[in-house]
Order: sequence, then structure tokens, then C-alpha cells
Amino acid sequence: MSADPLSNAKHLIACESVTPARGPVFDMLEEMLTPMGFEVQRFTRGDGPEGSEEEAVENLFAIRKGPEGSQHFAFAGHLDVVPPGDGWASDAFVPQERGELLHGRGAVDMKGSIACMVAAVADIPAESGTLSFIITGDEEGPALHGTRALIDLMRERGDIPDMILVGEPTSVNRLGDMMKIGRRGSVNIWLEVDGTQGHVAYPHLADNPMPKMVAILAELDALVLDEGTDWFQPSNLEITEFNVTNKAHNVIPGKATARISIRFNDQHSGASLSAKITAIAQKHGGTAKPVISGEPFLTPPGEFSAMIAEAIAAETGVETEASTTGGTSDARFLKDLAPVIEFGLVNATMHKTDEAVAIADLITLTRIYTRVAKAALARN
Amino acid sequence: MSADPLSNAKHLIACESVTPARGPVFDMLEEMLTPMGFEVQRFTRGDGPEGSEEEAVENLFAIRKGPEGSQHFAFAGHLDVVPPGDGWASDAFVPQERGELLHGRGAVDMKGSIACMVAAVADIPAESGTLSFIITGDEEGPALHGTRALIDLMRERGDIPDMILVGEPTSVNRLGDMMKIGRRGSVNIWLEVDGTQGHVAYPHLADNPMPKMVAILAELDALVLDEGTDWFQPSNLEITEFNVTNKAHNVIPGKATARISIRFNDQHSGASLSAKITAIAQKHGGTAKPVISGEPFLTPPGEFSAMIAEAIAAETGVETEASTTGGTSDARFLKDLAPVIEFGLVNATMHKTDEAVAIADLITLTRIYTRVAKAALARN
Repeated sequence: MSADPLSNAKHLIACESVTPARGPVFDMLEEMLTPMGFEVQRFTRGDGPEGSEEEAVENLFAIRKGPEGSQHFAFAGHLDVVPPGDGWASDAFVPQERGELLHGRGAVDMKGSIACMVAAVADIPAESGTLSFIITGDEEGPALHGTRALIDLMRERGDIPDMILVGEPTSVNRLGDMMKIGRRGSVNIWLEVDGTQGHVAYPHLADNPMPKMVAILAELDALVLDEGTDWFQPSNLEITEFNVTNKAHNVIPGKATARISIRFNDQHSGASLSAKITAIAQKHGGTAKPVISGEPFLTPPGEFSAMIAEAIAAETGVETEASTTGGTSDARFLKDLAPVIEFGLVNATMHKTDEAVAIADLITLTRIYTRVAKAALARN
Repeated sequence: MSADPLSNAKHLIACESVTPARGPVFDMLEEMLTPMGFEVQRFTRGDGPEGSEEEAVENLFAIRKGPEGSQHFAFAGHLDVVPPGDGWASDAFVPQERGELLHGRGAVDMKGSIACMVAAVADIPAESGTLSFIITGDEEGPALHGTRALIDLMRERGDIPDMILVGEPTSVNRLGDMMKIGRRGSVNIWLEVDGTQGHVAYPHLADNPMPKMVAILAELDALVLDEGTDWFQPSNLEITEFNVTNKAHNVIPGKATARISIRFNDQHSGASLSAKITAIAQKHGGTAKPVISGEPFLTPPGEFSAMIAEAIAAETGVETEASTTGGTSDARFLKDLAPVIEFGLVNATMHKTDEAVAIADLITLTRIYTRVAKAALARN
């Protein structure tokens, strides 16, 4: 039954769902949630090339409402997985127990975690409060038609949670050692300097854009964006590309292009950084085209993080670290709805060959999730 | 007969000789020189892939010795041409007179000039002194097996000229307006900085080589190599490549490579510049691999340049400019044998579609060459 996280995980892993996910894996989750009294709403969003539905994304919102005025606690996650790649010891989409581990793509990122969420709510009485699942099929891909569409739906429905727990695999060495109370924002900026191509022997007839680009990058590399905050490490800028290839040794190139990538904390926004970088590029005769991948989020340590830390300590004895490191997740969108924290399985094998979860961790994580959900619904 | 530069030019153009040149075009030149009493020595040098002779280069040295102890004046040039490219009004290897112009690949660079040299010596008596032709089939290509091999041959033979005139098309707007008394040297330097690839979200686990390369290039761009000399413009450094391409937005590259190209005057040598750039690269954690294409040469204004200027003035009324601008030529090698100056046809169409020479210029250049050769042989 759905109260068994190992069984849930096997059922979900067996539904191949390389991003963007649709269909069977959502059917499976719906089959688990409906008998427990959840109302399930599914929809697809996004079009493939030529108007086909090939790249459409499926999303699922499930809710079991508690008494009027009760707290609303939400679990969030994704059923899509990254491609398996080659070299697996067993079929990536045939869940296989070997010793203490369950192998399969998505075992930790994050079908295993969703399996635990489902099991965790199995014995929470409906009168405790409102529980919901915010599940997308587009987290590993462009994330254009996933969680953002779910947020729109929830706003239309008027179903706004009080707290959201995202089940990303945040544990590092052992289950419970880390949760994420924030994530940095991310922006990639393409830089361009136009010049005039020419022969190196006649530089007065050319205008080499390279020195201008080097000056832009030197100034950007010297920038100190901030010194970090209580909760965030300093924002970081990396030069990731400078792609002026030139087969002719004697030719001054006519254009220089480069790219930087910034991971930034809540001292900045994507827009403020874009303006700052654009001004530096323009000062040296260049242009900047920013693409903001995500704004930072922070749920400062407090009631919600304490609930999770207490649940982890009670089930594992581990003192959890509240971190804001690492890449982006859908929490960057969910923060607009409610306080959001990420906590899930050990991430050592995520995105790798032979992704696997400790079966014992599935049991323990289920108990932790149950404790957190009960504590959240018990708030006044 | 060989005294007609137009006829000579047509015969040479008709022998297709895209670099590296061998065979028929050299047969043709030999046929012109032998009847005038020149001893002709031809040889090939260089191997193609797999030991084939496909890329072998032909060279020709022709000499007509004067009385013991007489002056030795040499003409130098090349019979190879650059590929014709598309869009010619007539076949590039079928010489065609249209109006006042003779069209064909090599018309100015530099079969036309060699045609004039041959015609120029036709009526210089053998007793005036020693005349020679230093003609390669590898000037437009890598120049590895051309003039340098001819220099070795001449040294072995003990036939060292007192002055050498290279027939490169140095005239700019009209025949005679410019000769080259020097050329800058050229060195291309490949720069490399090793780093450690990683994810932009975890920069502490990576070592981005880009800031180091940017620092190297910023320091190189700020270098003032010199202020120029009486005869040379300032040495010039151009950043010509920075080829770190990177499809993944989130990846810190593991290696940065770039290239610079320096054209330098006689304040430097290829070795001195290589050492300077290498030190700057190493200071920032990088390496430098220089490839020296040529050292600078200078034949300071004096007796030789005065002879050429006077011949030009006598035939055209033009006051010639003694320049050191532009790219490299085989004069960079010939300077080791004797004072060398370059003077030839108008270069407006060289390397271009519909390369053409004014037929009148062939007549005039022949007369100028005759005057210069006579003056050179008349020295005491």
C-alpha cells in the first residue's frame, strides 16, 4: 500500500520519465493519492516543435482539505528525471534492490523522496489540517512550464499553503545532515564587443575588439559583489566563455563574445546585477545580454527550520545544518507562495550512473516527513 | 623574345602555379634565361604527406658571371601564386589583355615583376658584372623550403650577391611611389592557462583559468613595446584569439587558450619578445609558446635606396617613399646575404579576383630594373 515508501519508490521508478515527464508516472502517483482522499488535478503545459505536444510538460496538484481555517502544509517535488546515461549495472528504469540499496534513476532525485511524502501522509488524519502535493514533470529541464504553472493554478484555486517542504536530495553524507533554507540566484550574461576585422600588419585599418573585452572581463573579475551575509556565502562571478576562434594567425577578429555566470545572494536581484554588468560593458564599448535563471530565496532560520531540525534529530540524532549553498531548485518559484525549505535524501548518487537510495533512509525520511507535516498542521 | 616583358608575363601567367610551384613555370623561366647566358640550377625541397613529393617546392638559382672581381647584383622573387578564387571575368591562368591591362593570377604578385627582371637584363652586357636570379616556388605558402634553401645553395656555391632587389609589388597608387627598405618581424604566441573544470555553483571545487588569462592579456595589451624608430613605426601587439567555447552555462572551463600576434621593428628580436611575453604569462600562472615567422630587416637609406630612387625618378618622375610598413616577405631571409630592398608593381589587385597589371607599367618597370642593375654593377 501507499504507506510503504519502498513499494511507492519502486512503482514510481518503474515509470520511465526522462524530463519532461508526462503520463504513466503521474497516473501512478494519482493512484496512490486518490485512495487517501486527495483531490487530484493534472494538466499539461507547453508545446513541442511545430505545435506538436512532444515537449509538453505534465503537472499535478493534489489536495486533501482539512477543517475550515486549518493550516495548509504542502510537499513539493518533481517526477521527471535526468537521462540515465550508459553503464548501469541494472536497467535504470527497473528498480532493483541490491543489499541495503534500491537502485534506479530517480531513487534519490527525487522519486524516492515523493514515495516518502506519500507514505508520510498515510497516517495523518484528515481533520489535522490541509495537505497538498505540488508535483511537476519539468524541474530537470527548462522549468518553464512546471512549478510556475502550478503556482498559477494554486492562486486561481485560492489554495495557498502556509509552509512548503521541497523534497530535493539535500543530505550530503548521511540522511539529515543538511537542509536548504535558501538558494542563491543565478544569471548568465552574454557580452559582446563589435570591432572591425583586419590584418595584423595594418592595425590602423582594423579595430580589435579583444582589448575592450579583456578590459570588461578584468573589471568584472575584480568586482566584489558583496562580502556574504549571515546566511549566504558571498555572491560569485565566473567567466565561463570567451569564444573568439580564429584560424588565421594574421587576422584581427571583427567581434569578441564572452559569457559570465553569477550566483548571487539576497543582496542582489537578477535585475540589479544585470544593470551593473551592462554599465561596465557599455563603459568599455560592449553590450550585455543577461538571462536570469532564478532569483535567490531565503527562509530565515525560525519556526519552520526548527520543526524540520527537531524532526531530523528525533529520528536520526543528527544535528542538521541550515545551508544556502549549491544550485537552484524550484524553491526559487515556490518562495512567492509561502516559506519554503528543502530537505530530502542523500545526494551522492544523484544524476549519476547506478543512482541508489539506502532502503533504511526511505523509512527514516518517511518518519521525518510525518513529524514535520504533523508539526506544521498543529500550528495555531 | 625575352626582352619583351609583356610576352614574358603572359608566358609565366599561362603556367598555372598555385603555391607550392613546381615544373612548367620553372621550365618557362629557364627557357628565357638560358639563351641569355645564364647557368640555371633547379632543385626541389620538402616532402608531402606519407613521403610523397606532392608538396615539394621547386627553387631556381640562375647566374651569369661577369669578369673576376666584378659586382654581383641579384633579382629575387617567387613564381608561386595564391589560389585564384571564384568570380574572375576571364580564366585566371589564361593571360588576357583588356584595354590597358593584362589580367591573370600573378600579374603583379609577382610573375609580372619577374617578367620585367628577365627583360631588364636582356641588354646588359655580360662584361658589366655578375647577375643572378633567386626564384622560389614557396613564398605564398609556409616558406619553409624556398628562399632559405636557395640561400644555403648560394653559400655552398660561394655566389654571394652585393645587393639584392626583391620584386614584390610595393607600389601603392602608381608605379614607383613606394619601395620597402625594411619589414617588421612577426611572431605569433599561443598562451595557455590550466585550471580545474567545475560547476559555477561550487567555485571552491574548481580553478577558473579565465581570470588569469584575462590578467595576462590585460597586461600584454597595456605593454608599450617601443615608440618607433627613425625608420619603423612602433611595434604592435594584437590579441587575435581567445578560444574557450563552452556549451554548458554552468561549467567553469578547465583550460583557457589565447593567441597574440606581434609585428615588431628592429628594437626587438623574435627571441627577446618571446622571453618578455613568456615572463608575463608565467607571472600569472600561464605558459607561452612562440612561433617566430620572421625577424625584422632594415637596409637603412643610403647608396642602394638612392640608386632605386634615382631610377624611379628618371623613368617616372615620381619621388619614391622608403617604407618599412606592411607584412613580411622573403627579404627577411635574404637580408642575411646582402643589403636587400623590395620594389615592384602596383599592389592594388594582388591576391584579388581579376588581378591585373598596367601593360605600360611592365615597360616602365623593366627600364627601372635595367637602370638599377646597371648602377649596381657599376659600383667600385
